[in-house]
Amino acid sequence: MISQQDIGISTSGRGTYDLSNDIQRAVAASGVSTGICHIFIRHTSASLMLCENADPSVMIDLEAFMQRLIPDGDPIFTHTAEGPDDMPAHVRSILTQSDLNVPITNGRCSLGTWQGIYLWEHRLAPHRRIVTLTITGE
Amino acid sequence: MISQQDIGISTSGRGTYDLSNDIQRAVAASGVSTGICHIFIRHTSASLMLCENADPSVMIDLEAFMQRLIPDGDPIFTHTAEGPDDMPAHVRSILTQSDLNVPITNGRCSLGTWQGIYLWEHRLAPHRRIVTLTITGE
Amino acid sequence: MISQQDIGISTSGRGTYDLSNDIQRAVAASGVSTGICHIFIRHTSASLMLCENADPSVMIDLEAFMQRLIPDGDPIFTHTAEGPDDMPAHVRSILTQSDLNVPITNGRCSLGTWQGIYLWEHRLAPHRRIVTLTITGE
Repeated sequence: MISQQDIGISTSGRGTYDLSNDIQRAVAASGVSTGICHIFIRHTSASLMLCENADPSVMIDLEAFMQRLIPDGDPIFTHTAEGPDDMPAHVRSILTQSDLNVPITNGRCSLGTWQGIYLWEHRLAPHRRIVTLTITGE
Repeated sequence: MISQQDIGISTSGRGTYDLSNDIQRAVAASGVSTGICHIFIRHTSASLMLCENADPSVMIDLEAFMQRLIPDGDPIFTHTAEGPDDMPAHVRSILTQSDLNVPITNGRCSLGTWQGIYLWEHRLAPHRRIVTLTITGE
Repeated sequence: MISQQDIGISTSGRGTYDLSNDIQRAVAASGVSTGICHIFIRHTSASLMLCENADPSVMIDLEAFMQRLIPDGDPIFTHTAEGPDDMPAHVRSILTQSDLNVPITNGRCSLGTWQGIYLWEHRLAPHRRIVTLTITGE
């Protein structure tokens, strides 16, 4: 069995967005019991990650780390047409993930206890993002 | 064909652990000749990587690079409940991989000559880690 | 349906190489309409990425960022047998991707408008690189 669908996410700008519930619902609706859920983001200035889902300070610290590593307006960058966060958004995407695969067991994504699936918006302004799910298995 | 199983790894603390042989054995036992082996770690403070498998100094240098990039006890971090290596472990996991896919050809993971599959424990203390393999193909 | 093939790329040294057209051709030839195209690089000193495909300055800036983050000849590295770019090439590979999955929709990789699939050669000298495609679906 294979099924495919898009999920749209309207971000309010830079930050993380928990997709875990949306993805679990899609997996349940697919009827797949054992398989793989593939998650793909169709953009190069927002990305995906599996991250600790319990303490919001983890996301704050991740954001602080990324801003120190890849500062907005860094003079090393020449691709600045869309602003000081344009090229940092591409670098952040390259250093994290554009696609993830999560195993499906007994009809659910078998995430660890402390794992959530997040979209990370790297641009400062709100954006409309599309994530494609492809669910395969039996 | 699709099969799924968990592998447990008891780490002795921060360092890399070669999973290549365990994974090759599982692929051989699955009966899949052509397909994909998906490897997923159910944790957010240990991760996976494909890395050079011949010279142990590569792992030493990787560890030194990560410790410089994301120092334990870095004052930028506020999520420190579990110690100075808590938040660095999450950042290291985000910057490496939580899941990998390796092609199966002629009944084996078709790794390059110098490629091994490693679990990277980022916490200083020993941990029990679970990796889920999902093997699909024909 | 599942099919597998290798693509060879002769690089002229450090830089990015657009694989998008080669991969789209392989997907079209596979006959798969809905599925997944898995892309795997059999090396640990070159890697894969999904990146903005319109403005060449993005690649120039990515390269500048990586050279600042992981300088060739960095004295932190001991694995230098093959030269000052040897260990930086491994670190760059670890921080980017060795494998990617892209959804197939209506017989094509459904990339976003601004997404291309790139091989990133991290060694300074020319190399012959092998990428394995595994295309599954219906």
